[in-house]
Amino acid sequence: MRSHYCGGINESHIDETVTLCGWVHRRRDHGGVIFLDLRDRDGIAQVVFDPDTPDSFAQADRVRNEYVIQITGRVRRRPEGTENDHMATGQIEVLGKELTILNESATPPFPLDEYTEAGEDVRLRHRYVDLRRPEMAQRLRFRSRVTSYLRNFLDGEGFMDVETPVLTRATPEGARDYLVPSRTHAGSFFALPQSPQLFKQLLMVSGIDRYYQIAKCFRDEDLRADRQPEFTQVDVEASFVTEEDIMNAMERMVRNLFSDLLGVNLPEFPRLPYAEAIRRFGSDKPDLRIPLELVDVEDLVQNVDFKVFSGPAKDRKGRVAALRVPGGSELTRKQIDDYTEFVGIYGAKGLAYIKLNDRSAGIEGLQSPIVKFLGEEATMAIMDRVEAADGDLVFFGADKASVVDEALGALRVRLGHDLGMVEGEWAPCWVVDFPMFEEDDDGKLHALHHPFTAPVSAEELQNNPAGALSRAYDMVLNGTELGGGSIRIHDEATQNVVFNSLGIGKEEAREKFGFLLDALRFGAPPHGGLAFGLDRLVMLMTGAGSIRDVIPFPKTQNATCLMTDAPGEVDEKQLRELHIRLRRSAKSDQDDSN
Amino acid sequence: MRSHYCGGINESHIDETVTLCGWVHRRRDHGGVIFLDLRDRDGIAQVVFDPDTPDSFAQADRVRNEYVIQITGRVRRRPEGTENDHMATGQIEVLGKELTILNESATPPFPLDEYTEAGEDVRLRHRYVDLRRPEMAQRLRFRSRVTSYLRNFLDGEGFMDVETPVLTRATPEGARDYLVPSRTHAGSFFALPQSPQLFKQLLMVSGIDRYYQIAKCFRDEDLRADRQPEFTQVDVEASFVTEEDIMNAMERMVRNLFSDLLGVNLPEFPRLPYAEAIRRFGSDKPDLRIPLELVDVEDLVQNVDFKVFSGPAKDRKGRVAALRVPGGSELTRKQIDDYTEFVGIYGAKGLAYIKLNDRSAGIEGLQSPIVKFLGEEATMAIMDRVEAADGDLVFFGADKASVVDEALGALRVRLGHDLGMVEGEWAPCWVVDFPMFEEDDDGKLHALHHPFTAPVSAEELQNNPAGALSRAYDMVLNGTELGGGSIRIHDEATQNVVFNSLGIGKEEAREKFGFLLDALRFGAPPHGGLAFGLDRLVMLMTGAGSIRDVIPFPKTQNATCLMTDAPGEVDEKQLRELHIRLRRSAKSDQDDSN
Repeated sequence: MRSHYCGGINESHIDETVTLCGWVHRRRDHGGVIFLDLRDRDGIAQVVFDPDTPDSFAQADRVRNEYVIQITGRVRRRPEGTENDHMATGQIEVLGKELTILNESATPPFPLDEYTEAGEDVRLRHRYVDLRRPEMAQRLRFRSRVTSYLRNFLDGEGFMDVETPVLTRATPEGARDYLVPSRTHAGSFFALPQSPQLFKQLLMVSGIDRYYQIAKCFRDEDLRADRQPEFTQVDVEASFVTEEDIMNAMERMVRNLFSDLLGVNLPEFPRLPYAEAIRRFGSDKPDLRIPLELVDVEDLVQNVDFKVFSGPAKDRKGRVAALRVPGGSELTRKQIDDYTEFVGIYGAKGLAYIKLNDRSAGIEGLQSPIVKFLGEEATMAIMDRVEAADGDLVFFGADKASVVDEALGALRVRLGHDLGMVEGEWAPCWVVDFPMFEEDDDGKLHALHHPFTAPVSAEELQNNPAGALSRAYDMVLNGTELGGGSIRIHDEATQNVVFNSLGIGKEEAREKFGFLLDALRFGAPPHGGLAFGLDRLVMLMTGAGSIRDVIPFPKTQNATCLMTDAPGEVDEKQLRELHIRLRRSAKSDQDDSN
Repeated sequence: MRSHYCGGINESHIDETVTLCGWVHRRRDHGGVIFLDLRDRDGIAQVVFDPDTPDSFAQADRVRNEYVIQITGRVRRRPEGTENDHMATGQIEVLGKELTILNESATPPFPLDEYTEAGEDVRLRHRYVDLRRPEMAQRLRFRSRVTSYLRNFLDGEGFMDVETPVLTRATPEGARDYLVPSRTHAGSFFALPQSPQLFKQLLMVSGIDRYYQIAKCFRDEDLRADRQPEFTQVDVEASFVTEEDIMNAMERMVRNLFSDLLGVNLPEFPRLPYAEAIRRFGSDKPDLRIPLELVDVEDLVQNVDFKVFSGPAKDRKGRVAALRVPGGSELTRKQIDDYTEFVGIYGAKGLAYIKLNDRSAGIEGLQSPIVKFLGEEATMAIMDRVEAADGDLVFFGADKASVVDEALGALRVRLGHDLGMVEGEWAPCWVVDFPMFEEDDDGKLHALHHPFTAPVSAEELQNNPAGALSRAYDMVLNGTELGGGSIRIHDEATQNVVFNSLGIGKEEAREKFGFLLDALRFGAPPHGGLAFGLDRLVMLMTGAGSIRDVIPFPKTQNATCLMTDAPGEVDEKQLRELHIRLRRSAKSDQDDSN
């Protein structure tokens, strides 16, 4: 129905007759002539109708914004002085000869140009209009290019695209499962996969050797922090490999992706041991663009009278750390109060600081509410350790290590942005040498990645599980975890030790993971892999502010689809077939809403 | 961990030292030497260990079938007379120097070579072993090549891969939905998509212009006839196109696929109107490899005394058809009885026949239980019409048209195979000119495709809906529907007429499809598309006997996964969070099973 896309015509088409289809982006009447900006996926072309062609002029007179039309006309150079250098097609226009209205449009729920004023709710409700905005269309197109690029890369490396089930068994990724009642098995439920983890491991046991899948994953969690109930993972697994093989292949893939799609040459990814990342940045996904670092000062404050510091300094699970902010003495009282409130979100009970005005004046050159409690010796030792200079400010965190890490880690990133200290555009790294487990307050161990992650040393796992390191690795970019993976356990004995460390008894292990344990007995090869969060990757690459902006039909924070109004009510007959009924409370909720 | 794949070494590697990883496929001791057939994804290599290298020989002596090992050795030519021309690596072997056992294996649940004796249940329960069979591995690999090929084709044609939601609203594809209870909206449910139909239409309204997705779809139906609760669709949609555009692009895609992946040059796809397909083949997915055709004879038997024929012949909804089987007079009584039973499956109450032994003898040359009821005139007129020759047999169907179509349509295919009449390997076609609706026995109309299919003529749709044709098209290969699609309705008024014809009132339409009707009001472009069943396509291309053989982890006919034992029970806490409870009957089922 078209000869060209609107965005595809240019000076080389001058004097050609073209047929275009698209939406009326804007319509102007000017000097007895009608100008239509016609929009399609590729761009916008200006079409002119004058009264010399009365039929098409009359049609053009009828059209309104977002009408769908087909036009035929001759391409010509725009009259001098009317060129638009901001438009790809700005040197030319089409003199319209025929115009067919393919469909009318009611006044759109919001003008495309003024979407920001519409509010996200209206945009989500009429997503089919919102996606017409060139910015949104370009993001979806970019996403399509990313998946296509990654698939071709992986195909080229001998990875096989294999589909794993969506209707499956509950797996213990730690989040809540979405459940699907079975009609044929009364009282039984499928679960939607939180990831294809166990299936990809089973594919390795099958000898598939190299697997990938761009897979939908599901987690029924409360959607704080820009998450979606369904999200997409680029899932990779290979057999007979070491962590080096996987990390090198995946780093190459991401570097090629950035280079070929964005023209960005990422540096080689530095490797950062987990312990170092936490120590220096308070985070296992550090934003390395920010040149601020945490510095431990426990040893300097263990014996001071100031209990706020000496308490955590003496506690095995405590941490006292300093964060030097170059030039930070300019911060106002108000700003410091704001940061104090900010770290409170992470559980910090306060935010001690020292401003260094004049180093040569010794303790007199400092300005701080805490120096009098710390004493001169400790204070100056801290100033030495953090290499504070005149004009600097030093923040402190003193609490349980996890609180200090989170609070100062987040403060570090916020300060970096607030003070314009972000260096460079892209800072990737690998975080490695993760512990197998983290200990909760009751001393119970939890898998830091998942219970199928291999330990570096089977002996250490046996003898000192809380201190054992795993063969896991995370790819981090600009403070966001792009992907994570590990070499997996491939023998039943080690898998049982891990289950045991996690307090999963023989019987429970057999019931939940019997099929995995069986598979490990029948010739499982050494294997490992990685999974990337595709939504997040595309968000970073496009500079979008939210993953909702790179997902065509996202859900709200409340896990609803405003456009289709899902989830919705179903009739009693369906529930009966599925052998379930609503609880009384759910029914009365419904009655209320009726 | 390896230098080559097992299947990748050949005479060019002679005298090189290689490292291979894989599974012990077979082990033989022969003349004091141990022969291991080592298997990986790419093939099998023979590795020889002799007592000259005592360490590795001792290790080799320990290994059993399906052990996972890594070997290093030197490639050499096999001794003369021991070459194996049936193996890709049959000219060479590896003289093993080192052997590491990477994992042991218990005796496999069934020997890979004797899988047919194991029964499908055992194979599905230990799918990770079953997938090691070279045949299965090749099918999965082929499937991966198919998806990769189709994606690259569609990328190249400007189609964008766009993901649509899996947690969505119930849509009316006609089958039963899988439901997912919402935790955050008590009493509400998501549905898993039966297809991305409405979303892809909304993407067209968004101006995406060309969309594709290899999408999981879900139908909670009873799984007769080789179906799966989740299956995969190659889903395509485009804007500003006619049926010719879509059909040409898709035909080109499938022909290229067959040519590039199978070396098969498919002929141009003939177009067969629906009415003709039913008339000649009794089916809207005719297997054109079979040179048998149904021939209508109503007009010849309307006035015979034989009520079995004259009744349906006079009935507007009846049909009387003949199926001539060349050389069929050889069929025994027993065979004819079997076919009679066979057509009974499709509701036929009997299977009348006439054998033509000697045409020149007139009615005397016939052998048939029905000739005496039909009379000579009608009988000979039928023989003329079907152009029966000596030695032929003519079967008859006389019943409601739908019964005759199904019974003789199925019989035609069965006879074609039984009598070795299948001509050629591949016979594709397009079936076109479908009716919009089919009428049930109560005179109610049902959408033959789905309610979003555009009519050929809006006037006809208004005035005579039961006779209106749609702009739908199905791609058929060897009697299997590979894909189906249509030009869609893109204006609200037509959509409402269709809903109305289907007995869907204004209010119900608004409630169920309000978002679609809204979208049609805001500038929907003309659009259409198609969806292929990927499982079925790969099944046909690989010659597999069932779609279960081309799906890595299929469900049984009973919709269970024998390997993971899904669906499974969940605990009361989860149900409470989802605001549902089990019905009493489901609970007692569970108690019984405990």
